[in-house]
Amino acid sequence: MIYAAVLAGGSGLRMGGDLPKQFLNICGRPVIIRSIDAFIKSGKTDMIYVAVSASYTEYMRELINKYIQFKNIKVICGGGNRNETLYNVLESIKKEREVSDEDIILTHDAVRPFIDDRIINENIEAVKKYGAGNTVIPAVDTILQSSDGKFIDSIPLRSTMFHGQTPQSFSVKKITELYENMTPEEFEQYTDACSVFVAKGEKVCLVQGSRDNIKLTYPEDIEKAESIIKSKEQD
Amino acid sequence: MIYAAVLAGGSGLRMGGDLPKQFLNICGRPVIIRSIDAFIKSGKTDMIYVAVSASYTEYMRELINKYIQFKNIKVICGGGNRNETLYNVLESIKKEREVSDEDIILTHDAVRPFIDDRIINENIEAVKKYGAGNTVIPAVDTILQSSDGKFIDSIPLRSTMFHGQTPQSFSVKKITELYENMTPEEFEQYTDACSVFVAKGEKVCLVQGSRDNIKLTYPEDIEKAESIIKSKEQD
Repeated sequence: MIYAAVLAGGSGLRMGGDLPKQFLNICGRPVIIRSIDAFIKSGKTDMIYVAVSASYTEYMRELINKYIQFKNIKVICGGGNRNETLYNVLESIKKEREVSDEDIILTHDAVRPFIDDRIINENIEAVKKYGAGNTVIPAVDTILQSSDGKFIDSIPLRSTMFHGQTPQSFSVKKITELYENMTPEEFEQYTDACSVFVAKGEKVCLVQGSRDNIKLTYPEDIEKAESIIKSKEQD
Repeated sequence: MIYAAVLAGGSGLRMGGDLPKQFLNICGRPVIIRSIDAFIKSGKTDMIYVAVSASYTEYMRELINKYIQFKNIKVICGGGNRNETLYNVLESIKKEREVSDEDIILTHDAVRPFIDDRIINENIEAVKKYGAGNTVIPAVDTILQSSDGKFIDSIPLRSTMFHGQTPQSFSVKKITELYENMTPEEFEQYTDACSVFVAKGEKVCLVQGSRDNIKLTYPEDIEKAESIIKSKEQD
């Protein structure tokens, strides 16, 4: 089984406005629906989990009924942070069927609607080969490290620095085992599942993302998103 | 004396097209002219150096004659990389007048036309206090490190990671001394002057940049630039 988990736990506060940014309508279709669309269109995912905060589960179900034909899709409650949300997805998977060695999960930001088939396929291949993959793009600007936010500690070699995108993809068995052996402190400490893999000494393979695979974070990103949608429609 | 050095050594190849991106006309004014405008408008810089590759010095002088009233502006040849270009600027400064302890230089990407007075002022203050400053914005995405480009080595704590912007600003005396004592290998090794400062154990203070202070790198950045210009005109 190949699962996709579209994660929308966040409140989207940086975007301003009342409606979390994953629900904003861009060119006539909500962002989160566009993210789900990409997985359905790829034809690779057997089952899609959509995790949203408790107060939006009903709204999310209505959106799916309105926009999506695909039936293997399930809305669940997100947790207090990304790891908890993903843990909830894994629990839900475990309840429904036995986990096999071949099961793969692609976890994806609900607010990154522009993943494409290539990225999805390469994530699946990365997990088949190495057990875990993280979509990235190389850093264009210099990256600086500062532990106090006042002075530069170091300027790592730019060619070794990458921006994390999603999907982050995993062997369902491997990530479930790692999560089940984590302490509550570790759940706080690691901001995402790839950090957990790296901390536990597990390999995480880089998958080439794309500049279009933006995360809608700030109001000006909406304009960029509209422009990407329009350019794709012209293709 | 407060100097600005607007650096445009690069060929701008990533943007495509024949004309280097620093010379592209955006909303009726070339990018590099907009960058120079910002320093003139701030009223803080006594002298502006503009470094371009040898084949564009005449063209650059024509642009300045056409668009700029400010007289204390000098076009010089850039070098093979950023450090060499800045070294040329420092040599040119030294030829014209004696360097004093109070002299400050703000070095700036020609293709970042959206710096504002606050950023310029805070760079000057940073140099006065600490001898060097680097304009940055906090990382929004997760940053990953991979030395082989295949597997993740580490995922540093996001709150300690920053994107470098410009200006990078220095005590003229300090940077001249550092540059004059560098080996040719070090000139190759360090990609910019802040890296040199950090490597030599000198303090570099972080200066808060802005999301608008983008570097025009890819064709799609032009659209973003037009949108920033229009929103500033409405203010």
